[in-house]
Amino acid sequence: MTDRPLLVPAPTLKAFIVSVFDRWGTPPAIADLAADLMVRTDLRGVDSHGVGMLPTYLRWYRRGWIVPAAEPKITRDEGTTAVVDGQQAFGHYTATLAMELAVAKARAHGVGFVTCRNSNHYGAAANYSMMALAHDMIGLSLTNSGPAVVPTYGRQAMLGTNPISLAAPAGRHFPFVLDMATSTVAIGKLSVALRWGTPIPPGWALDEDGQPTTDPTVAYETRHLTPLGATRELGGHKGYGLAVMVDILSGVLAGAAFADVRRRDPDPVRHDIGHFFGAIDIARFRDLDAFKADMDDLLQALKDSPKAEGQDRIYVAGEPEWECEAHRRREGIPIAPGLVKQLREVSTETTVPFTLGT
Amino acid sequence: MTDRPLLVPAPTLKAFIVSVFDRWGTPPAIADLAADLMVRTDLRGVDSHGVGMLPTYLRWYRRGWIVPAAEPKITRDEGTTAVVDGQQAFGHYTATLAMELAVAKARAHGVGFVTCRNSNHYGAAANYSMMALAHDMIGLSLTNSGPAVVPTYGRQAMLGTNPISLAAPAGRHFPFVLDMATSTVAIGKLSVALRWGTPIPPGWALDEDGQPTTDPTVAYETRHLTPLGATRELGGHKGYGLAVMVDILSGVLAGAAFADVRRRDPDPVRHDIGHFFGAIDIARFRDLDAFKADMDDLLQALKDSPKAEGQDRIYVAGEPEWECEAHRRREGIPIAPGLVKQLREVSTETTVPFTLGT
Repeated sequence: MTDRPLLVPAPTLKAFIVSVFDRWGTPPAIADLAADLMVRTDLRGVDSHGVGMLPTYLRWYRRGWIVPAAEPKITRDEGTTAVVDGQQAFGHYTATLAMELAVAKARAHGVGFVTCRNSNHYGAAANYSMMALAHDMIGLSLTNSGPAVVPTYGRQAMLGTNPISLAAPAGRHFPFVLDMATSTVAIGKLSVALRWGTPIPPGWALDEDGQPTTDPTVAYETRHLTPLGATRELGGHKGYGLAVMVDILSGVLAGAAFADVRRRDPDPVRHDIGHFFGAIDIARFRDLDAFKADMDDLLQALKDSPKAEGQDRIYVAGEPEWECEAHRRREGIPIAPGLVKQLREVSTETTVPFTLGT
Repeated sequence: MTDRPLLVPAPTLKAFIVSVFDRWGTPPAIADLAADLMVRTDLRGVDSHGVGMLPTYLRWYRRGWIVPAAEPKITRDEGTTAVVDGQQAFGHYTATLAMELAVAKARAHGVGFVTCRNSNHYGAAANYSMMALAHDMIGLSLTNSGPAVVPTYGRQAMLGTNPISLAAPAGRHFPFVLDMATSTVAIGKLSVALRWGTPIPPGWALDEDGQPTTDPTVAYETRHLTPLGATRELGGHKGYGLAVMVDILSGVLAGAAFADVRRRDPDPVRHDIGHFFGAIDIARFRDLDAFKADMDDLLQALKDSPKAEGQDRIYVAGEPEWECEAHRRREGIPIAPGLVKQLREVSTETTVPFTLGT
């Protein structure tokens, strides 16, 4: 095994994922949609939420949490709002249907909001907020997930990394695409530190007693992430508040699982993840061209503002991902050696030929 | 001058503020509304956004930014959405009208969203999100403000402290009320450190070169706050992204000033602050009682979860403020000696008798 990543063209990666999903009896259109969003996520450099999730999805499929051929049901639909029961389908599929519904509602009524319950991991939150961009709308995408984040003054994970994604179109600039976990860092950063054996900065994670730890082994084992802000002194109670906000909208309001309720069940039969989607038609508030011109002004002003000592560039949210996507479409998607090994195991277990390289 | 705060009953404080506003030619109903929200803010312990703003409002009134008798205009109104031009009225008044409109729209259509431009400082964001609670709705309140927050890798303030407030009702528990600046700390914390001459924690503020400073004098003079997350390593780019998100919704979408555009004008004739309000009718998504029961479950689970070493209580957002309000309604509102001095000056300058104590 080499230490260098395998460089895989996007279409090759997608074809492999589709073959795996096909082996699970996933209808072709659903397999195509989910694989496409996973590869798009890797293209954008969000390596934690793309094909890196495939081994986990295999585990969840075997456990019966993901039902590949399920069709989500719209259980309520009234003008500006709707409620979707995901029926344990792929989160990507349920989320896409729900966001399409939100956009259609915003087209008709100015705004549209759709919740989903009984869903699964939907990958990168931005995949759905960005669906609003082509319609000249602002898109919003929130989801909850299993407990990984410890409340301020606590020592047990009670909240998911509960991301917030908002996408807004600009004119000559890339659209603004915020997609952020409400934790200080993602679990993925802990596994990287563990792999290299390097200490983690104080503030990323807590030990069993709820105290900051710099030991990557302890951090990875407890999986006790801090909320954004890290400590009370630096505003960790704000990140904690944001994580609860996301759980209220995507968990409680959706009628899905929330906080640690999943853990209370010794053998849950479903994941019951919840999502919250919104679309806002910009033209209902302002002339679209004026909005886009001001977006360009805002983004340019931020990028042009004076740099800190030692820095030569200020970014705006989404910009690194747009640049990464252009690069990886040309050069291929790098798959880390550890993940290559896992994907070979997926290939063996599902008897799908490993077609990503040698 | 004593070092101890003056304890003022809420009605006495309100009457004093109303008298000052009356001297500016503020119509009685508007003076009453603004004073009421300011005192409510002090009751809730948010001392930075209540009567403490009165000296600043006096300055803005004199400058012509606040036009006390102005009537906000609804410039667009279509079912679920509306746009309000504040006409430079008190921010509290414009915001109240706009949130009432959002609630009415949510009653009729499930959700309602209203932007405001040409407004002023509206006090505490939660005053408006909380208006949704009595209607069994979720309320959202965002506003931008003058530049105080430095983008990640920058060294100039480009964004306001741009707060996010979301309020959601519960059953037996206090409602969840998040109200957080998207900066690590508020300016108010710097002035407290300056007053006592104590070093500030690294991560709160930056010096002229964009480097962290622990010197309260430097921090107070530059007023270069960090976005929530403080440093890139601890996720400061996320707080920065949230601040831009709030500026997009309350500034750009509203057609108000945003980022540093106000600073580009050497002598701006108005403040042109923008707000964004939302109301979501819970019953459109879920049975209201089931929602409230799950909210109680969520909040109780967080509060019951194991405590970090040395901690005996976990809070949920809004809880300290509800408790403070009950306490201060009984005991009075403590006004710090420095603020007493400033309010005496307001009294002299506006020839309104100082009635708060001796």
